[in-house]
Amino acid sequence: VIGFLPSHRNKEIATMKFDTLAIRREGAVLFVEMLAPPLNLLGPELVRDLISLIQQAEGDKAVRVLVFKSADPDYFISHVDVARRKENGQALASGGTTSFALLFHRLSQSRLITIAQIEGRVRAGGSEFVLSLDMRFAAKEKAIFSQFESAFNAIPGAGAAQHLTRLMGRGRALEVLLSADDYDADLAERYGWINRALPAEMIGDFVKALAHRIATLPAAGLATIKNRVNAIALASAEVMQRDADLFFEGLRQPEGVSRMDAAFKHGFQTRDAEMDFPQLLRTLS
Amino acid sequence: VIGFLPSHRNKEIATMKFDTLAIRREGAVLFVEMLAPPLNLLGPELVRDLISLIQQAEGDKAVRVLVFKSADPDYFISHVDVARRKENGQALASGGTTSFALLFHRLSQSRLITIAQIEGRVRAGGSEFVLSLDMRFAAKEKAIFSQFESAFNAIPGAGAAQHLTRLMGRGRALEVLLSADDYDADLAERYGWINRALPAEMIGDFVKALAHRIATLPAAGLATIKNRVNAIALASAEVMQRDADLFFEGLRQPEGVSRMDAAFKHGFQTRDAEMDFPQLLRTLS
Amino acid sequence: VIGFLPSHRNKEIATMKFDTLAIRREGAVLFVEMLAPPLNLLGPELVRDLISLIQQAEGDKAVRVLVFKSADPDYFISHVDVARRKENGQALASGGTTSFALLFHRLSQSRLITIAQIEGRVRAGGSEFVLSLDMRFAAKEKAIFSQFESAFNAIPGAGAAQHLTRLMGRGRALEVLLSADDYDADLAERYGWINRALPAEMIGDFVKALAHRIATLPAAGLATIKNRVNAIALASAEVMQRDADLFFEGLRQPEGVSRMDAAFKHGFQTRDAEMDFPQLLRTLS
Repeated sequence: VIGFLPSHRNKEIATMKFDTLAIRREGAVLFVEMLAPPLNLLGPELVRDLISLIQQAEGDKAVRVLVFKSADPDYFISHVDVARRKENGQALASGGTTSFALLFHRLSQSRLITIAQIEGRVRAGGSEFVLSLDMRFAAKEKAIFSQFESAFNAIPGAGAAQHLTRLMGRGRALEVLLSADDYDADLAERYGWINRALPAEMIGDFVKALAHRIATLPAAGLATIKNRVNAIALASAEVMQRDADLFFEGLRQPEGVSRMDAAFKHGFQTRDAEMDFPQLLRTLS
Repeated sequence: VIGFLPSHRNKEIATMKFDTLAIRREGAVLFVEMLAPPLNLLGPELVRDLISLIQQAEGDKAVRVLVFKSADPDYFISHVDVARRKENGQALASGGTTSFALLFHRLSQSRLITIAQIEGRVRAGGSEFVLSLDMRFAAKEKAIFSQFESAFNAIPGAGAAQHLTRLMGRGRALEVLLSADDYDADLAERYGWINRALPAEMIGDFVKALAHRIATLPAAGLATIKNRVNAIALASAEVMQRDADLFFEGLRQPEGVSRMDAAFKHGFQTRDAEMDFPQLLRTLS
Repeated sequence: VIGFLPSHRNKEIATMKFDTLAIRREGAVLFVEMLAPPLNLLGPELVRDLISLIQQAEGDKAVRVLVFKSADPDYFISHVDVARRKENGQALASGGTTSFALLFHRLSQSRLITIAQIEGRVRAGGSEFVLSLDMRFAAKEKAIFSQFESAFNAIPGAGAAQHLTRLMGRGRALEVLLSADDYDADLAERYGWINRALPAEMIGDFVKALAHRIATLPAAGLATIKNRVNAIALASAEVMQRDADLFFEGLRQPEGVSRMDAAFKHGFQTRDAEMDFPQLLRTLS
């Protein structure tokens, strides 16, 4: 798990500089806006910045709530950057962890209350990032959800099978995990993937009000609530890591490798091709 | 747990007199209407009456289904009367139990089939009462739900964290438990807090028909079904009591005490101020 | 559990003849259409055919997805044929299993991806069959769901209590299991009984596209996903068998026997009377 070193503890978070994050602080709420061109892939720069931000925020008692959103109008987090797996491993290691599964599990256990404001695509490891947060709100007209790992012979590697099965039950979780398809915000709400789908013009104000509301409440009580809910609904670190191991096993099989190669030839990890991921996958079959 | 003494076993329940309950019996269905002015707080009189009623009903084989509703058009059960904690403890003790958590847990295991017909506000311990029942139906235009314990540095003390996490999943349960906000019947249905939201003009007939339908079915099969469902979805008495202990720990902290004091100064436990509880809470911040 | 003998392994499944099933194969997808007049009861012929089909399909690596639908416009599977319990037991035994509970549990663990396309009534053991499959889609205008076992003093015997409690939570599962009532497709969707309710004119194309989509994806990854989801959400074989035992215990009690006799006198297991099952049950009370 993450070491959460107390470095920079005295530095004002809102004035810290990140490569991929813009930070705005209002009272005890930190608004975190992600921008990692060209399509907000979860690569080493974003990983380093997110870990650093969480470490700083956890060390600052004046911060209670984190709101994550994206500065890219089409992509919240597209997914983990598969072309930079080694660098991602180094970034995770430098943050004191060994996998996205364990990083996200650690985040689910943070004393910080975390909220996702999703206004673009969030697929695979991106979806698993928001599933590790405490609450998820999405813009009806713009948010798109997918777990496409099955297209590459793999189970999701950072908790989606654990979270989605508990959130939406066996039948819907199997549909989502097996189909590798895109789901819009309304269906994501009906399935329990997110808390609510809201009109795009309202989501900002809604999340802001909720974040400030929670930020005014006593911190000890919030932490107790989160601990008790996690005791019921959060898979163990061992189970999360087992999914991560199975993810890599699946991806390494010949069918995983060949389909991944083919996907890169058809535009995988490019902004245009990933706008319609189901179409990209159809070209592989 | 409750002793369920066989006292008064020969007395006709429908003719029993209660301070806070009006009882009407139709065949094997008992309709229980609560009225504890000024705002249906769960205080010692209501506690004693509810325990007595359940004991009598459990001892009478001719009773199979209990329907709970409120004679107050605005409040179903507002919440536990915090100003009368000691008296509540005595009322619970005289009924053979030591906490609302264990009383409600016992009720969830009753052979009686229990239905809530919710047409007003039901917050905190009031919500936990209906969560301990077998089914919950609410009037779209009038029912309001809240777990506001986080506003007083506490986790819900009588099962809400256990029930809501299982009913609505981690993300929505955290939102409800952390926000301390009001939720209307439609959203409560979408989140799984209740079975269904129904138009106010239909809810009475709907619940009555359902209650009578179930009351005609063989009792042994109903009891087996309830036992098997509880084995999957009902937290243990130990876990329920642990939440109760954490609730009191949180409330006793300085931040819990000072916010409770402030709430009383702003109208907590008065009929008018609690009509808009979120507004009352805003005045504390 | 089922032996899954390799008999007929070399035979082309699509050319096999069944008494109650019509098979159509498109690539790796097998469309299975059930017809067991007069009302698609789950009797020994259908049991034998289903077991044989699953055995063949599991033994044929070229088959990945099974879609189940009904050739009867009013009944998907009405329920288990109670009048032919002994013959059903023999059919299950010849397939290497001892109860519907264990047969369905085995089906939930199959490497095959299974989808129900429900356009008629599916009650009791019929509902439990579709609950054992991986996904369930239903026609809004035509599908009807029920677990009516409580009307005969019994808990569902083949997994419904296990599945529904996990899919819809304690309150809604108790309502469904205790009420013995009919639920339409829209309500079944809101409760989580099915993945989605779709317009009847669209359901065929939707399921076909989903089945083919999944059939193109690497088989090993699909199997891993299914295993991991089952590890969270599928009850054990022991628990499933315990429900089966309780089912028979309830049915054998005098109240179970007398109500079953009365039901037969009022048209139980006839096509016309079962069109409106709640009405049939009302005549028993």
